[in-house]
Amino acid sequence: MTYKFSNKIANLKPSAIREILKAPTTPDTISFAAGNPTPESFPVEDMARISAEIYRDSPSLALQYGATDGYTPLRELIAERQKKKFNIGRSVSDGDAFDDTTIIVSGGQQGIELACKVFCNEGDAVICENPTFIGALNAFRSNGATPVGVTLEDDGINIDELEKTIKSTPNAKLIYVIPNFQNPAGICTSYEKRVKIYELAKKYGLMILEDNPYGELRFAGEDIPSIKSMDEDGIVIYCSTFSKILSAGMRVGFVIAPDEVASKMVVSKQTSDVHTNLFFQMLCYKYMTECDLDGHIDDIRAIYRHKCTLMLDALDKYMPSEIKFTRPEGGLFIWCTLPHGVNANAFIKSATDKGVRIVPGATFNCDTEAPSQSFRLNYSTPSDKQILEGIKLLGNIAREFI
Amino acid sequence: MTYKFSNKIANLKPSAIREILKAPTTPDTISFAAGNPTPESFPVEDMARISAEIYRDSPSLALQYGATDGYTPLRELIAERQKKKFNIGRSVSDGDAFDDTTIIVSGGQQGIELACKVFCNEGDAVICENPTFIGALNAFRSNGATPVGVTLEDDGINIDELEKTIKSTPNAKLIYVIPNFQNPAGICTSYEKRVKIYELAKKYGLMILEDNPYGELRFAGEDIPSIKSMDEDGIVIYCSTFSKILSAGMRVGFVIAPDEVASKMVVSKQTSDVHTNLFFQMLCYKYMTECDLDGHIDDIRAIYRHKCTLMLDALDKYMPSEIKFTRPEGGLFIWCTLPHGVNANAFIKSATDKGVRIVPGATFNCDTEAPSQSFRLNYSTPSDKQILEGIKLLGNIAREFI
Repeated sequence: MTYKFSNKIANLKPSAIREILKAPTTPDTISFAAGNPTPESFPVEDMARISAEIYRDSPSLALQYGATDGYTPLRELIAERQKKKFNIGRSVSDGDAFDDTTIIVSGGQQGIELACKVFCNEGDAVICENPTFIGALNAFRSNGATPVGVTLEDDGINIDELEKTIKSTPNAKLIYVIPNFQNPAGICTSYEKRVKIYELAKKYGLMILEDNPYGELRFAGEDIPSIKSMDEDGIVIYCSTFSKILSAGMRVGFVIAPDEVASKMVVSKQTSDVHTNLFFQMLCYKYMTECDLDGHIDDIRAIYRHKCTLMLDALDKYMPSEIKFTRPEGGLFIWCTLPHGVNANAFIKSATDKGVRIVPGATFNCDTEAPSQSFRLNYSTPSDKQILEGIKLLGNIAREFI
Repeated sequence: MTYKFSNKIANLKPSAIREILKAPTTPDTISFAAGNPTPESFPVEDMARISAEIYRDSPSLALQYGATDGYTPLRELIAERQKKKFNIGRSVSDGDAFDDTTIIVSGGQQGIELACKVFCNEGDAVICENPTFIGALNAFRSNGATPVGVTLEDDGINIDELEKTIKSTPNAKLIYVIPNFQNPAGICTSYEKRVKIYELAKKYGLMILEDNPYGELRFAGEDIPSIKSMDEDGIVIYCSTFSKILSAGMRVGFVIAPDEVASKMVVSKQTSDVHTNLFFQMLCYKYMTECDLDGHIDDIRAIYRHKCTLMLDALDKYMPSEIKFTRPEGGLFIWCTLPHGVNANAFIKSATDKGVRIVPGATFNCDTEAPSQSFRLNYSTPSDKQILEGIKLLGNIAREFI
């Protein structure tokens, strides 16, 4: 049987990372390839207690079909917290020009998917940082939209190149950015660049899709205002998630977007999965009201501060100085770059053969054929011992190549 | 701000049913409009116990990211049960020409969505029963595919019309059918027609999307083999769900499809929601291994047998004989048709004004402008008292119109 798949899906490849993670391992394998939160970040006892309460108090509600836009008390609580802590969310009753709406989605990924589906026809384009999150790239491709990359610098996207790219991509509908602790590069977009991205989007009539899964995981430096907090024109769709602060497996995220945009995303979500698991939406609500979410986030930050520092210190100690790496102030990833002339593929293969899993930088390129001298390291999943041993091993391999 | 939405989403309307359900109610409102399973069908005590066990025994697994194709033990168990009970699922090792793969999806709706995305380009068509499930119609539309309806008769789709429609719709990619207790009509496709649908799909090179959310809810008559059980050529995608037998709110369904098709659906799911809520996948697995799923389904069947009989008896007693209705042997719905000449919209409006919610038949038409003399009644959600009072009220209103 020869299947005639749709054009947009026929050539879509599974995420290289998920393939790497599926590869056989031995007990000695050290993986820096995942993007998983540490299991220590799951507040298991509180979640177990709250779950028992939901079964006791409201099982008929929690196990029944729910509203597509989400569990109303959770939506309201998220909106309130985001407004108070991050100045996100506009309201006509506050004198703004439009209303934002908060909707619940099945993880941050679904926010990206729905935004793309709502704005892009097949053949359209999405402008994004290059490199960027593979899940977003594939969401664009699977909707028939082409990702068009703009060089990512240490303080965010190159602004001149962004404007040139906008001008030369008339079918672009969205600008997709991860301003905080970018995946894969770990960097933050500066305040100045955030303002300029907003201004360019406004000038050229594009929507901004601001993806912020890691924003609450800052363990050094100062918060930078989100692009959404500058949104006076209703042009920013803001996606975030509970994956990194409560549980990734439960698949609960949220989107804050102008009313009209949010309602189109809801109609589209209705046809995708009807609604997000209601039990865990209620659990999130109860956790936020009964427990200390901000205190819990502080605890997670402390874990990642420790792990990131450990990995950076090991990189300083064991890596040849020719290898450059970012020094993140939050999030889950460090981005390393080999000097020109080193065969990056051979380096990564050697690391794999010697039991250390890393993600090739090319995975995150908009152009799937483009090479990369970089690779991504994750510090949230491995143990302290694995971080030290793995980086030492990578350092030894690097010395063979330099 | 004027948003430039994608063509496929710009004109998509929210499900009329979900809008009806959102309309304000009084304590006296009687709703026959929902498609919800009865809360009595949720095995709350077992689910609570199993949840506590998961938190105790494997929280780090259950709350972490999981595989996109689903929790392997659950996939294997579903495949085994479907093969044993329904002869669904082929395997090269059994001498078949291809392998089927079972994947977990976030409710049956996601199976429909992914099948459409994987096979349809914008501008393609899906051939389906007319009337049919609004969620499927909107999934097709939201992927830019046009639903093309074929008249539904008491024993399934009109086969001559199906062949004519296939011939006149060269851009059709899928035939979508709900052979058991169809939504909205409540009828079953006969065995003979299932064979013919399969033969026509094979002859003309189309895939069949067989949606079977209600198959296990048969409370009278004999099971009819699924189209998937006839699939010797790898042309049937089979969707089902735990929504009607364990919990709708948890959003866990499954798809059984030829290997190559399933793997494209998995790649597409990766960009949609990464994976289905893992905690509840594990819960389904433990429920199936530790509890008596078949016995539980028997209990649900008994509830719906009682409720359906009650509603049919009331229709016999209170409805003028000019109004025709189906006599389902399972599922959740009865389909009523007003005689020609009666103003169906005015009838439905009068019912709404008098506190009885029913779903206009036009909601389920492929052509959104086409009128309908029919309306859908649900018996799984209302109480016995509401069924009796509501049908009596509808009967009184009907007499005013005839």
